[in-house]
Order: sequence, then C-alpha cells, then structure tokens
Amino acid sequence: MSKSALVIIAQGSEEMETVITVDMLRRAGVSVTMAGLDGNSPVLCSRQVTLVPDKSLADALAEKPQYDAVILPGGLEGSDRLSKSDVVGTLLKEHEGSGKIIAAICAAPTAFVAHGVGKGKKITSYPTTKDKITSDYTYIEGERVVIDGNFVTSRGPGTAYWFGLSLIELLTDKEKAAQVEKGMIITGY
Amino acid sequence: MSKSALVIIAQGSEEMETVITVDMLRRAGVSVTMAGLDGNSPVLCSRQVTLVPDKSLADALAEKPQYDAVILPGGLEGSDRLSKSDVVGTLLKEHEGSGKIIAAICAAPTAFVAHGVGKGKKITSYPTTKDKITSDYTYIEGERVVIDGNFVTSRGPGTAYWFGLSLIELLTDKEKAAQVEKGMIITGY
Repeated sequence: MSKSALVIIAQGSEEMETVITVDMLRRAGVSVTMAGLDGNSPVLCSRQVTLVPDKSLADALAEKPQYDAVILPGGLEGSDRLSKSDVVGTLLKEHEGSGKIIAAICAAPTAFVAHGVGKGKKITSYPTTKDKITSDYTYIEGERVVIDGNFVTSRGPGTAYWFGLSLIELLTDKEKAAQVEKGMIITGY
Repeated sequence: MSKSALVIIAQGSEEMETVITVDMLRRAGVSVTMAGLDGNSPVLCSRQVTLVPDKSLADALAEKPQYDAVILPGGLEGSDRLSKSDVVGTLLKEHEGSGKIIAAICAAPTAFVAHGVGKGKKITSYPTTKDKITSDYTYIEGERVVIDGNFVTSRGPGTAYWFGLSLIELLTDKEKAAQVEKGMIITGY
C-alpha cells in the first residue's frame, strides 16, 4: 500500500512550496491529501495564486487520523495561521508521539515552536525566521534540508525540490527519489 | 509601469511549472495574469492539483491584446491542448510579429511547432518531446534554459527556477533576478 502524506494549507501559504511538494510526492506514488485548514474552499496563497484543497482538514482527519507524513508549507501568513491552530497543534503532537514524519519548510518550522513539538531536534527554516526558533532546538544553516529523526525541515521556495526529494526518500526509497529527480530534470538537463 | 505576463493554463498543465513561474514573476513585480484556456473555472492539472485561473483567456485578451510576455507551462495534456487552440496560435503569431517575449517549458515548446512560430530559433524542451521538434528549429540539449532573441525555452519541472529567473531578467533586470534568487534561497542556503 502506498504511503500517505497530509499537506495543510491556509490563507497566505507559499504556493510554490505547496505545489512542488504535492506534485513531487505524487510523482513518487505517495497518496497526498492537500487539506485546507479552514475548510475545502479555494485558498488564496502568498503570491495570489488560488489553490483548491482536496478536502478540509477536518474531513481529512475524520477519514484518516494518522498519515505517514504531515507537511507544513511556508509563507509568513500561512505559517502564522498553522501556528495558531489548535487542530494543527494536536495533530503534530499525535504524529510526534507515534514517530511519523513531520516536515516544514520556510517559515513553517515556527509552527513547531508554537506547538512545542520536536524539542531537542536539529532544524532549519527561512533565514529571517531564525530568531523565532528558540534554544529548545539546534538551528542549522548552510543545508538545503535538515533531517533529524522524523523531523524534516528546509529553508525556502528555492530549496523545495530537495525538500521534496528528501521526503520521497524517507517515504519510499532512494531509487524512487532518483527516478523523480531524473524525470523532473533537476539534474541531467 | 510594471511589465505584464500572460501564463496560459489548460487541463493537464504541469502545476509546479505553472506556479513556480507565476510566483517568481510576481516576486519580481511583474503583473502576471494566469488565464484559463477554456474559461475561468478551476483547472485540474497534471498531478491532480486544481488551480483557479485569474480569468479566462478570452477575458485576458479582451482587456489587453498584447502582453510583454506570453508563457506556456508544460504537462503533456496541457501542452497538447495549447497546441490545438486556434486562439493560442493567433496570439503567438501576433506576439512573434511584435517581438514580444514568447516562452515555453517542458512539453510546451511543441506548441511552437504546432502553430509554426519561432522557426529558425534555438529551442529546448522536455527530452522525450525532442522528436516532435522539427528541423525548422535548432534543438539544444545540456542547458536549463535556452534564450534566442525573444524566444525562451526550458526543459522541465526541475529547471523551472531558472526559467523563472531568465524571464525576470528579460522583463526587468539582472539585479531584480538576483534579488528574487536570494529571497527564494535558490543559492545561499
């Protein structure tokens, strides 16, 4: 059975980080649900691209309480909304407890701080959000993607290809990641 | 006044190529219209992400017959629909005649062949579509982006960052492209 991933979007989420991640994981055969934090209505993202969620977060969790990965895209406003959501907080804590993959890119690792998950982990984030990552975490610079146990973090829209490849490798295997990398022509152009 | 770009999407367009390009150009201050080939209804893309166009292509052209750039995202089915559209053909010929930028990524350069624009130009495309590019063009491999006069082409989802940067440089300047590259953390992570 294919692995499952839940990508949660909110008003102001970064659209390319969202779409690159969803698209790449689907290329790898992962069953991805793009869920709207506030319902299943179209979501206006950070650069005015409107994405239609597959379903609301409430419905996504009603159908399946645990996913193999929970993934938070960045965008300052979107990350702020994810940080303030009790539903997201509960979900992250449950997934942390069961050792499932928890991933965030750009400004979204600030939601880990807000919800108190991943303490003690090495993480990275968008450079200007560094001061929001408390000393409960070890902050890493100079890497596109940081993996520490089941926590995966990345820096910004321009590192999203490698965030996607890391998630594919963790959810499937190296061969599948290499196949998607080749198919997308990230290298070998 | 800011430069304008028209990105045309159709059912089966490649969503990350579309969104990366739109998002990056907006980061650079370009006025981007994401237009739906068949209307303003949500468009189901190649990996089941649904994008909401800003408006229909018909409305986009009624409001503004010429844009500083016309951009075609890839995706096999999406490119095929762009190739078969008389409206797209007329638009590309008009923009070619006025020397405006015409750009396509992945499978979308096949629409140039279908509509007979850009003959004599150096172009690239998604590797498996190479055999559809006739001898009217000079096919280039080994480059992420090929620029020949006002024609800009690129290879696939994994070269979309650089397709976006090339378009930003052509529509604005090198400094703006460098600023977007840095802000996205394509380099300097």
